[in-house]
Amino acid sequence: MNASTSLKVRLPVLVLVLEVVILVLYAAFVTYDDNANAKLQNNETKPMENSLYRDYPYFADVQVMIFIGFGCLLAFFRFYGFSGMVFNFLTATFAIQWAILMQGFFQFYYDGKIHLGVINLLNAEFACAVVLISFGAVLGKTSPVQLLVMALLEVPIFAVTEWAVLKYIRINDAGGTILIHLFACYFGLGVTFVLYRPSLNDGHAKETTSYHSDILSVMGTLFLWVFWPSFNSALTFKGDDQHRAILHTFIGLSSSTITAFALSAMFNKRGKLTMADIQNVTLAGGVTVGASVDMMISPVAAYALGIMGCTACFFGYKYLTPFLARHMRIQDQCGIHNLHGLTGLISSTAGICAILLATEETYGPSMYQIFSHRAPPEGDPKLLELQKLIPGLKPGLGRTAQEQALYQVAAVFSTIAASAVGGMLTGLAMTLPFMASPTDKDCFDDELFFDVPSDFDSVEVLKNPISEDEKGQIKSMDIKV
Amino acid sequence: MNASTSLKVRLPVLVLVLEVVILVLYAAFVTYDDNANAKLQNNETKPMENSLYRDYPYFADVQVMIFIGFGCLLAFFRFYGFSGMVFNFLTATFAIQWAILMQGFFQFYYDGKIHLGVINLLNAEFACAVVLISFGAVLGKTSPVQLLVMALLEVPIFAVTEWAVLKYIRINDAGGTILIHLFACYFGLGVTFVLYRPSLNDGHAKETTSYHSDILSVMGTLFLWVFWPSFNSALTFKGDDQHRAILHTFIGLSSSTITAFALSAMFNKRGKLTMADIQNVTLAGGVTVGASVDMMISPVAAYALGIMGCTACFFGYKYLTPFLARHMRIQDQCGIHNLHGLTGLISSTAGICAILLATEETYGPSMYQIFSHRAPPEGDPKLLELQKLIPGLKPGLGRTAQEQALYQVAAVFSTIAASAVGGMLTGLAMTLPFMASPTDKDCFDDELFFDVPSDFDSVEVLKNPISEDEKGQIKSMDIKV
Amino acid sequence: MNASTSLKVRLPVLVLVLEVVILVLYAAFVTYDDNANAKLQNNETKPMENSLYRDYPYFADVQVMIFIGFGCLLAFFRFYGFSGMVFNFLTATFAIQWAILMQGFFQFYYDGKIHLGVINLLNAEFACAVVLISFGAVLGKTSPVQLLVMALLEVPIFAVTEWAVLKYIRINDAGGTILIHLFACYFGLGVTFVLYRPSLNDGHAKETTSYHSDILSVMGTLFLWVFWPSFNSALTFKGDDQHRAILHTFIGLSSSTITAFALSAMFNKRGKLTMADIQNVTLAGGVTVGASVDMMISPVAAYALGIMGCTACFFGYKYLTPFLARHMRIQDQCGIHNLHGLTGLISSTAGICAILLATEETYGPSMYQIFSHRAPPEGDPKLLELQKLIPGLKPGLGRTAQEQALYQVAAVFSTIAASAVGGMLTGLAMTLPFMASPTDKDCFDDELFFDVPSDFDSVEVLKNPISEDEKGQIKSMDIKV
Repeated sequence: MNASTSLKVRLPVLVLVLEVVILVLYAAFVTYDDNANAKLQNNETKPMENSLYRDYPYFADVQVMIFIGFGCLLAFFRFYGFSGMVFNFLTATFAIQWAILMQGFFQFYYDGKIHLGVINLLNAEFACAVVLISFGAVLGKTSPVQLLVMALLEVPIFAVTEWAVLKYIRINDAGGTILIHLFACYFGLGVTFVLYRPSLNDGHAKETTSYHSDILSVMGTLFLWVFWPSFNSALTFKGDDQHRAILHTFIGLSSSTITAFALSAMFNKRGKLTMADIQNVTLAGGVTVGASVDMMISPVAAYALGIMGCTACFFGYKYLTPFLARHMRIQDQCGIHNLHGLTGLISSTAGICAILLATEETYGPSMYQIFSHRAPPEGDPKLLELQKLIPGLKPGLGRTAQEQALYQVAAVFSTIAASAVGGMLTGLAMTLPFMASPTDKDCFDDELFFDVPSDFDSVEVLKNPISEDEKGQIKSMDIKV
Repeated sequence: MNASTSLKVRLPVLVLVLEVVILVLYAAFVTYDDNANAKLQNNETKPMENSLYRDYPYFADVQVMIFIGFGCLLAFFRFYGFSGMVFNFLTATFAIQWAILMQGFFQFYYDGKIHLGVINLLNAEFACAVVLISFGAVLGKTSPVQLLVMALLEVPIFAVTEWAVLKYIRINDAGGTILIHLFACYFGLGVTFVLYRPSLNDGHAKETTSYHSDILSVMGTLFLWVFWPSFNSALTFKGDDQHRAILHTFIGLSSSTITAFALSAMFNKRGKLTMADIQNVTLAGGVTVGASVDMMISPVAAYALGIMGCTACFFGYKYLTPFLARHMRIQDQCGIHNLHGLTGLISSTAGICAILLATEETYGPSMYQIFSHRAPPEGDPKLLELQKLIPGLKPGLGRTAQEQALYQVAAVFSTIAASAVGGMLTGLAMTLPFMASPTDKDCFDDELFFDVPSDFDSVEVLKNPISEDEKGQIKSMDIKV
Repeated sequence: MNASTSLKVRLPVLVLVLEVVILVLYAAFVTYDDNANAKLQNNETKPMENSLYRDYPYFADVQVMIFIGFGCLLAFFRFYGFSGMVFNFLTATFAIQWAILMQGFFQFYYDGKIHLGVINLLNAEFACAVVLISFGAVLGKTSPVQLLVMALLEVPIFAVTEWAVLKYIRINDAGGTILIHLFACYFGLGVTFVLYRPSLNDGHAKETTSYHSDILSVMGTLFLWVFWPSFNSALTFKGDDQHRAILHTFIGLSSSTITAFALSAMFNKRGKLTMADIQNVTLAGGVTVGASVDMMISPVAAYALGIMGCTACFFGYKYLTPFLARHMRIQDQCGIHNLHGLTGLISSTAGICAILLATEETYGPSMYQIFSHRAPPEGDPKLLELQKLIPGLKPGLGRTAQEQALYQVAAVFSTIAASAVGGMLTGLAMTLPFMASPTDKDCFDDELFFDVPSDFDSVEVLKNPISEDEKGQIKSMDIKV
């Protein structure tokens, strides 16, 4: 539109710099892990036992969620479909290649190298999901340059937090409730707090959906829904743990979905369904089961968690989001605080309860595998005994359930703190000059950053001049035809 | 629109009641199966041999078919895309969680509990497919409350029929031709028979497609097409049986697809293709190979079955569906009788032929695994001999091929009878008061149950006033531009 | 529209003839392979070790790419969405069933039969991808009859070339760069050279996109992007080779994607993004890593290849495609020469470098598995030694790296020659009478071959009369509302 938002120089320069940095770091530090290294294959390595076959199916499912699920879901605005889907593509692609390095340094670094396998890609996709969730808070109000900067900063802050929490606090978080959903949510809120645009509190003419954009967005929801069990179970232990994670996620999503329909109709003043509820609130159950997803919580608990998370999420959209926007300077465009924050808090609480209730009677000796921090420490004779029953059990920290519960609480609070502060600092960086930040008037408009086809705003021509009365007439005409 | 179809009270109350019932039943009866139970894991259970890894890939594929394939396919009406896609989502979600219980009581119940694993979810998805196929018969003419009631009744009737046929008649039906397609079809016809709306025989102004809804629906078809091999093979024996099921389904679909194109052009009066044929008739081959999908029928037979099923399906749409609507009070909205009924009957016949032609010469000893009812009964010395060749072979009933063929015939007729009667009774339940049933005029209209965006009927404004002549002019303008 | 393009007789007759031929050939020649044959199952064959479980996941992923990825991608024209998606469906379906036979005769034929398993379907899908890439060159300008004829001829020409190159020249081409992308590209260019339509060089009124068709096309891109690692790795050795293929493809696509965004903004005169770049150029990295995808090239090389391929592809679209159309009679509608030709040449060169640089130090003894032609020949004592380290290593030809490099060069040139000549001959066949070839005026128009819904060209009514000024006014109206 005008010089200040032209991407002609800004975007290529930023991308070029990033690519040079990544090339140098990849060249210096990235090599193959044992399962991808030809040299380490011999008569004792069986090709079909390569870790690839354990990780790739889940990686592929999460790929669909990231690129197609999120892409379609974020394309729900009538005049911002290109941007929603395509900025998601750009941000995700960059976030993953960057996360391979950042997480690599913290989690896959030894012998002076980051060792790369599909498992790194899978972890990097989770880091990418974090960025995309945060993106939801500022959808429609940011340029692709700002989004790349956000990914550039969020990924390392996430990688450090993840590493610190996993290494020092050591928690149970199979579905990523704390590290993914809570982190992403409060980071995003931090960013949007800094990027506050008071004039948008009164709405924006282009902040609207169309029939097709609503359908596209539901398709995104469905792709997320279908593959969410893979997401929640991708990083659990293999075997029964992963099995339960899939069962619980599916059940939680199911109860959440029918609850969302009920609440949507109940609180609509004409007793109809609202597409925004179908697109978002239905998914709440997937987050809510996250923290306890691999534990023996029983199927009915997953069902109940789905209902609870959905209810919190629904009322969050209805009351909390407008409140935050008006009174707290927090404009949460896609309501990530409802779908990831409130549900994440419920989920964390449920996880703590499940930890407190876990007994050897329910889990058998494999309790010390799931709750690895409760396993006896190195040297404890009980460890040897357990290792006979569960081969490969690693020594733990000998924590009690109560201790572990306190560590979980600590992890929740420190994750929230780190992400909120990180988000605010990142928001500040995004307000620097040359970021191509759109003006208030140009928000939610593809035309700012895209060459659009000639039908881009044609429908408007019709839409406006027709009053409700005329619409009635037209419809009766229609029926006569 | 008006009080009688408001969902404000009806839907939440129904959902709440269902959720309480399900919560109670899950709490009382549902526990984990052995592969999902932490307590049963020890040094003899290998995590990677968990049943999860055998079942989950097929479960995920069927998920895509159910939620995205059906969802898009049923969104083919111009003014009913929200409803087609979203009611599919609601109905499917409820049907699966309900089927976990209903099928659980019949198939996975022991020690006073339903034992839950991914295999139950997979079975529940087949029950769900049954409901969604039946839904096709009444698409556009039912409220979400009615659809939930339909799922509520159809799932247990299906579960009983399935259990009775499998336990007492004992049949071969790997692709679910008899139990899924025939059941779903005649159940749906039973429902629509009771819900007969004479005024709709003359067409409805909104019973129309648009350019985008047609494309969306083809996408649904493509998702069903791509994953149909997984659907037909999900419940076969592992190994060569599943391998053949995938080959046959793919081949049957392929020949069916090119046949559908040929017939579509041949019977169109201007020699053009009709999108409704591409959307539906192409899939006929997937159903038609179903009953014999795991047998040694030879690839060419699968090819021929695809052509035959497609041809029957095509002429069904052309002649039988209008006949049923006008003369039999059966308004089959999506033509499920063509895609699931006629093809199902051909498939059942082909299955019987394959059973009659099966010999040990072709199958080797594994014949007694596929045709398990022909295996020698417990105690027969031949059984021991066979078990040496095929470890794990279960004792059968010692039936001859001819006997088995008669049992198959019995299963076809009893399934059709049970489903037609069940469908009619369910239809009656759906006509009870407070079901929010739409009036004839409000059929095929999203506005009845959804808040719709402002462009919902804008295109109509243009469409109507333009005569064919004007269209010609406009097009030539267009080309000049 | 008129008699000369009516499909009423042409399409059914052609399909019927093809079906009869295929039925006869399947009946005479196609049987099950060992893994799909019930007779060969016994107490020594373990069901879960069936080749099905190695091949089917990749087959399913490629299915999604072929039917949904290509289908959506090719639906990018505003008035040609039905044709793009549906002709892709028809052509793909026929090409696969035909390739099962053609490749079968060359690769899976023994004991007088073609032996059919999922591995054949997977190979046939690659042959099908070849046809669909070539289709891209003539999109919008061909009838379904012509497309079937193209598939009918291209598949056997491809099968012969593939067989000759693999059997006699013996090359490394894991990702199919030479045999798939280069073949498909030059074949397609050969066809379009013959089908040259001078009047289309000045553009066509219907050669335009719409907001929804652009989004649909991006969805196609995303499906291709997500599953491309499966495509590139489907036919590699299992284990670490496949692992690397997945890593390299993912990394190449990632760097290619962000580069495409940068170039798109840099060379747009208003500094905006162009959807056609997002839809096509982002994918260049997937092709560019192809020829060396399973080698130990290091992650950074995959990253660099993605950038290089993307850059070549971008400038190809910008400068080379218009040049070819104006000066060489080559109208490359979708720019396949950029996405498959230029990238393919870069990839082949990179593959040759990787071959020249390969040492036992980097690969260990498994070098002789990846570069199988360098393995010692039968009888060489070194072979026995290596077989102790790498069980199952097959005897090779004892070629040096330099020799192998020359064979790769030979393969590139002979593939290009065979495909270009084959394409031109096929193009000639497509100009025969009775092919229902559209007139220049009727190109890019669904109405020629489809019954279209009434909104097909409604939007035009509005679009044309509105000047840029009015658009401004309307938008400001919009914002006031």
